Amino acid sequence: MATLSDIAVSAAINSLSAILFLVAFAILRLQPINDRVYFPKWYLKGIRDSPTSSGTYVKKFVNLDVKMYLKFLNWMPAALRMPEPELIEHAGLDSAVYIRIYLLGLKIFCPIALLSFAVLVPVNYTGENFEEMKTNMKDLTYSDIDKLSISNVAPGSSRLYAHIAMAYVFTCWTCYTLYNEYMIVAKMRLHFIANERRRPDQFTVLVRNVPPDADESVSEHVEHFFCVNHPDHYLTHQVVYNANTLADMVLEKKGLQNWLTYYTNKYERHPNKRPTTKEAERERVLNDPNAIMASAFVSFRSRWGAAVCAQTDQSHNPTKWLTQWAPEPRDVYWDNLAIPYVELNLRRLLMAVALFGLTFCFMVPIAFVQTLANIEGIQKVFPFLRPLIEMGSVKSVIQGYLPGIILKIFLILLPTIIMTMSKIEGWTALSALETRSAGKYYLFLLVNVFLGSIITGTALQQLKEFMNQSPTEIPKTVGVAIPMKATFFITYVMVDGWSGVAAEILRLVPLIVFHLKNTFLVKTEKDREEAMDAGSLTWAVSEPRIQLYFLLGLVYSTVTPILLPFIVIFFAFAYLVFRHQIINVYDQKYESGATFWPDVHRQIIIGLMISQFLFLGLLNTKKATNATYFLVPLPILTFWFFRFCKGRFESQFRRFPLEDAMKKDTLERATEPNLNLKLYLQDAYVHPVFKGSMEFERPRVVDEEENSPLVATKRSIRRRGNQGNQDDNAEDIMGISAV
Amino acid sequence: MATLSDIAVSAAINSLSAILFLVAFAILRLQPINDRVYFPKWYLKGIRDSPTSSGTYVKKFVNLDVKMYLKFLNWMPAALRMPEPELIEHAGLDSAVYIRIYLLGLKIFCPIALLSFAVLVPVNYTGENFEEMKTNMKDLTYSDIDKLSISNVAPGSSRLYAHIAMAYVFTCWTCYTLYNEYMIVAKMRLHFIANERRRPDQFTVLVRNVPPDADESVSEHVEHFFCVNHPDHYLTHQVVYNANTLADMVLEKKGLQNWLTYYTNKYERHPNKRPTTKEAERERVLNDPNAIMASAFVSFRSRWGAAVCAQTDQSHNPTKWLTQWAPEPRDVYWDNLAIPYVELNLRRLLMAVALFGLTFCFMVPIAFVQTLANIEGIQKVFPFLRPLIEMGSVKSVIQGYLPGIILKIFLILLPTIIMTMSKIEGWTALSALETRSAGKYYLFLLVNVFLGSIITGTALQQLKEFMNQSPTEIPKTVGVAIPMKATFFITYVMVDGWSGVAAEILRLVPLIVFHLKNTFLVKTEKDREEAMDAGSLTWAVSEPRIQLYFLLGLVYSTVTPILLPFIVIFFAFAYLVFRHQIINVYDQKYESGATFWPDVHRQIIIGLMISQFLFLGLLNTKKATNATYFLVPLPILTFWFFRFCKGRFESQFRRFPLEDAMKKDTLERATEPNLNLKLYLQDAYVHPVFKGSMEFERPRVVDEEENSPLVATKRSIRRRGNQGNQDDNAEDIMGISAV
Repeated sequence: MATLSDIAVSAAINSLSAILFLVAFAILRLQPINDRVYFPKWYLKGIRDSPTSSGTYVKKFVNLDVKMYLKFLNWMPAALRMPEPELIEHAGLDSAVYIRIYLLGLKIFCPIALLSFAVLVPVNYTGENFEEMKTNMKDLTYSDIDKLSISNVAPGSSRLYAHIAMAYVFTCWTCYTLYNEYMIVAKMRLHFIANERRRPDQFTVLVRNVPPDADESVSEHVEHFFCVNHPDHYLTHQVVYNANTLADMVLEKKGLQNWLTYYTNKYERHPNKRPTTKEAERERVLNDPNAIMASAFVSFRSRWGAAVCAQTDQSHNPTKWLTQWAPEPRDVYWDNLAIPYVELNLRRLLMAVALFGLTFCFMVPIAFVQTLANIEGIQKVFPFLRPLIEMGSVKSVIQGYLPGIILKIFLILLPTIIMTMSKIEGWTALSALETRSAGKYYLFLLVNVFLGSIITGTALQQLKEFMNQSPTEIPKTVGVAIPMKATFFITYVMVDGWSGVAAEILRLVPLIVFHLKNTFLVKTEKDREEAMDAGSLTWAVSEPRIQLYFLLGLVYSTVTPILLPFIVIFFAFAYLVFRHQIINVYDQKYESGATFWPDVHRQIIIGLMISQFLFLGLLNTKKATNATYFLVPLPILTFWFFRFCKGRFESQFRRFPLEDAMKKDTLERATEPNLNLKLYLQDAYVHPVFKGSMEFERPRVVDEEENSPLVATKRSIRRRGNQGNQDDNAEDIMGISAV
Repeated sequence: MATLSDIAVSAAINSLSAILFLVAFAILRLQPINDRVYFPKWYLKGIRDSPTSSGTYVKKFVNLDVKMYLKFLNWMPAALRMPEPELIEHAGLDSAVYIRIYLLGLKIFCPIALLSFAVLVPVNYTGENFEEMKTNMKDLTYSDIDKLSISNVAPGSSRLYAHIAMAYVFTCWTCYTLYNEYMIVAKMRLHFIANERRRPDQFTVLVRNVPPDADESVSEHVEHFFCVNHPDHYLTHQVVYNANTLADMVLEKKGLQNWLTYYTNKYERHPNKRPTTKEAERERVLNDPNAIMASAFVSFRSRWGAAVCAQTDQSHNPTKWLTQWAPEPRDVYWDNLAIPYVELNLRRLLMAVALFGLTFCFMVPIAFVQTLANIEGIQKVFPFLRPLIEMGSVKSVIQGYLPGIILKIFLILLPTIIMTMSKIEGWTALSALETRSAGKYYLFLLVNVFLGSIITGTALQQLKEFMNQSPTEIPKTVGVAIPMKATFFITYVMVDGWSGVAAEILRLVPLIVFHLKNTFLVKTEKDREEAMDAGSLTWAVSEPRIQLYFLLGLVYSTVTPILLPFIVIFFAFAYLVFRHQIINVYDQKYESGATFWPDVHRQIIIGLMISQFLFLGLLNTKKATNATYFLVPLPILTFWFFRFCKGRFESQFRRFPLEDAMKKDTLERATEPNLNLKLYLQDAYVHPVFKGSMEFERPRVVDEEENSPLVATKRSIRRRGNQGNQDDNAEDIMGISAV
């Protein structure tokens, strides 16, 4: 195991790399040529103008103002300056609540760190179990970090009551903070929803699994069903087309069209040289009854009517006429709108099995990394490497840096696989896809990074011993392993946390890609616009990683408090960086109104309960049987707290109460009595390929009989009204904005 | 362990006692004097007239028709004769579906028994591991039952593939049957609900946790809230009074009044000698604002409106304005209607802890019973008893009968405790109380009777060995214990199942109580009416016990098939007896429309999965590691099947789809356009004490200001309309009918 000096070396390396990143960022962000990389959000909002278009030639690319370089950290106070309501206005509620997770980490761990340094560190340090421990168990290796940890308290010592009391205090504090935060976020969401402007999804319900009907088309069937069963509230509907082929063609055409614009700019001619095959495909989709999927977006006259339909069962066959709130139009994941019930169930089963395989087959390489991290282990396995390893600096580098990096490479491969799995599972909204992926990824991190490091890491060394041990010995060995892994996790926090966050603000990949594109590909101003990749919060990856830090902090709060300052620094630094990024860089693709909070809350509580069980296991190894009885109520109370919060808050994030719907309806009816809602809603849920590019217009509600020559005229009339600002929406959804 | 001859003795004893019960029943039921004990259902329906009131004096009490005694089993075909639709009409859907559980047992286990006797018994019998087993493990005792069980197959034998294949076949068959049955019950329920007459609960929603309001009474607050948020659908409401003191007084008064009637019959005078103190209490309750609880029954103009309100969230604080379907008036459990959210959560937490304690502290006495059941164990512990025990007949009696009886006595104490726990948990309907109690009782049986018998029973013998064994040895020892316990469970099926069911039909306790009452207490015809205790299906006790038989059948289907015929006989016999009882005896207190079926389905699947895991453990002891890989998908697929069925069917039992509500509404509007629904609903949900006895009339919706002298007149008018048939309802709910 690593010693304190190893940790110091590692901390120095990581702090240095973080500072290097920050200095690089401070310099690069001041160069006008990078402006679109570091401030894309403002460009997208139309507030900032390209600095490259004014000033002298040199000033277009390099910032020569020396004063500005001196204040190279001034982005930090700037990031904190924007007040929260303005932040919500500027970046949306999702982003504002996302950075509150880091704030929550600070709220939880600052007091815990202070308390445990004030109480537990002195108790541990004066425990003086160290020498005895060293002699008793020669095969397990210890470092002087353990002097500050619970390992230094003798088994059966009454000092352990201090740890038990602190476990209660920490749990109470965490729950109190979590409850408060849940309440605040719920209020923010309520306020956000109440102040929201009129949005199509407030009036619309997604209906899936429309049963086939021999006499009627899907569209007629939907209309009749809702006219009968929601007679006072039904307004209109929009069937869903299976337009995947068409979507591909639109993508292809988009590329061709860019070239056209480029050449048109260059030569001002050939304006009619455009491909026309899609027109045929579009006709095919619109006229082919098989291209209509058994789903529809049904809109209602009032929010009340939509809320009622979304929350109730329509048919006595609960696999037909499934209703749910329609996601925001930008949030719809079109590919999954029409999966039959049995197939959906089969897909979920297969993906559950696949997730199990993915989670537990990754064990092997990670476990291999864990054995590498234990340098004494390497020496035992490869004794001929000993002279190399024992060179002081090599040893420190291997100990401090390598294992984290190897782990990181594994983890980079993962999110794409997991997102694909969520897509196969058949969720209908991008936000749902992200939350589900986050859940899977959290499970993965939990099993492989956390438990894998603690249990398998030692299990590989000791599996053989386990098999010949009596069962009462096993929890002891596992319990002893938790404090042993503290140094590994400290390194992990620094490599993955500190350096990771610093790399985030530098945006190295988007920076390089932007300049490559700018040099070789950009032909028009529109191209430059598209080369600017603002990116967005990658919820499915970031959130589970934050959760891992919560878990580490909670587990080690009572065991090895020395880890806590590293966690606190991570949360503080990440809060700063992500607040800056949200203000200046990220452009969210959709707005879910913080529906993810119940998941965040649940995962933190899972972490808390894991920490309690592990602490219980650890105390069992300390021969403090009386003491452990005191700990049994802790997970029970925590679970109860979880249930309590679920009942108290969760439905505010899942459903839309009728009282609020009625309030908004009444208000709207009073202020805008002449609103033509049908007109407002009719284009909202058209598949993006039908309204994305200028040549396409909105498809009519297709009835099979309506194939008269008159139609063409109707279309051309509609066409004129449907261009302009809808293009942006469509591009966002299709992810076309990057060439 | 018991040998085959022990089993034979036990089977003989139990069959004999069952036959004795049946003969006694056949004789007793023919006596006119017992008519009200064995056919109360027909009296309650008003179809049957007391045979004691006609004929000669002797014939009033004793049946002298010899021919009828000869056909003493003719109740059996009679019980089967009534077709199911008529049965539903006669006894309600709950009862009709209840006996389908026994039918389901037959459907599942008849083919399984045939198959396992055709395939597994020959495979086991020719396995010839017996002698070897006997010599290898001297400390574990074996009987010749084991020759027919999987114990007789040598470890690692390829014969085990037959068992694995059968495990798949049995699981598939069970799932197929379960799916079919779920579909049938769902259809029956749908049909039942569609054909139901108008009932108050179709229009009514129970609203709990009405938030306090400074300016308005609860009643006004409810009215305003629903007028605003369900303007087109709200009709009327009824607040809930805290009338527990009053209810006690009513009970007391009822006793006094019976005496009054008795003396009035005798002397035809003193008609006005009745207590009047309750009148004061009633005034107090009606006028005291603190007696109004924060709950109300809110009724709507249509079923559609009620369905919408019951299924949606009303307020953005999900702990306020909680809505749920109102239970049918007889089904309401009035005491629990107004428990605040936090208190409700605390109660559930406390009861969960209490349930854990109850389940696991009963382990000690049951485990003690288990050691008694093992006669060789007794001999080891008390060697001085050996001469007594070794007398052949004593041994057989102890082996076969005693352990079952002791177990039974424990179990009789239990249901009352469990029901009290469910009441503390705060469920608002009697049906919910019963289902929840059944769930708790099932857990209890699972842990204590089933797992306790298998694991603790052997654990007590071998706990010390476990502690010094390596972990790989533990599953082997547990696995070996399953087939060893087969004889115990065969005895248990006979004692608890066969004799229990036979005792059920004899109704010994109600018979004795009726005759005691008849001789000493009955003064009036009304008293005799009340002395006739029809009883009802005790769901909370019977259903978990059926589940135990499902579990036993499924666990032993692959291990010791010889147990299956005993299970099949139990199901067949119980089906006959309970069909007879439902037709002739039981009088259900409420009708829930088979809402319990999802619980039945879930518990059978839990049993199935337990059987799979145990079989997996057992095969691990058989050194068939390859073979066990084949078994791993089985529980996964079963769990998936459970999720599939849950999604496919469960909401049909929990919610009321809008399509069906609209259909019934439309039909009713067409057939009865002039229906005064408000009048129909106004008395439905009045607390029974306010309408139970003749002197009480329905309370007005109390507004504080309305205390004018005019009220008295209004009351007397209403009084006349509210007597008669409502008395029965009230008595049923309050449980007053038994003196």
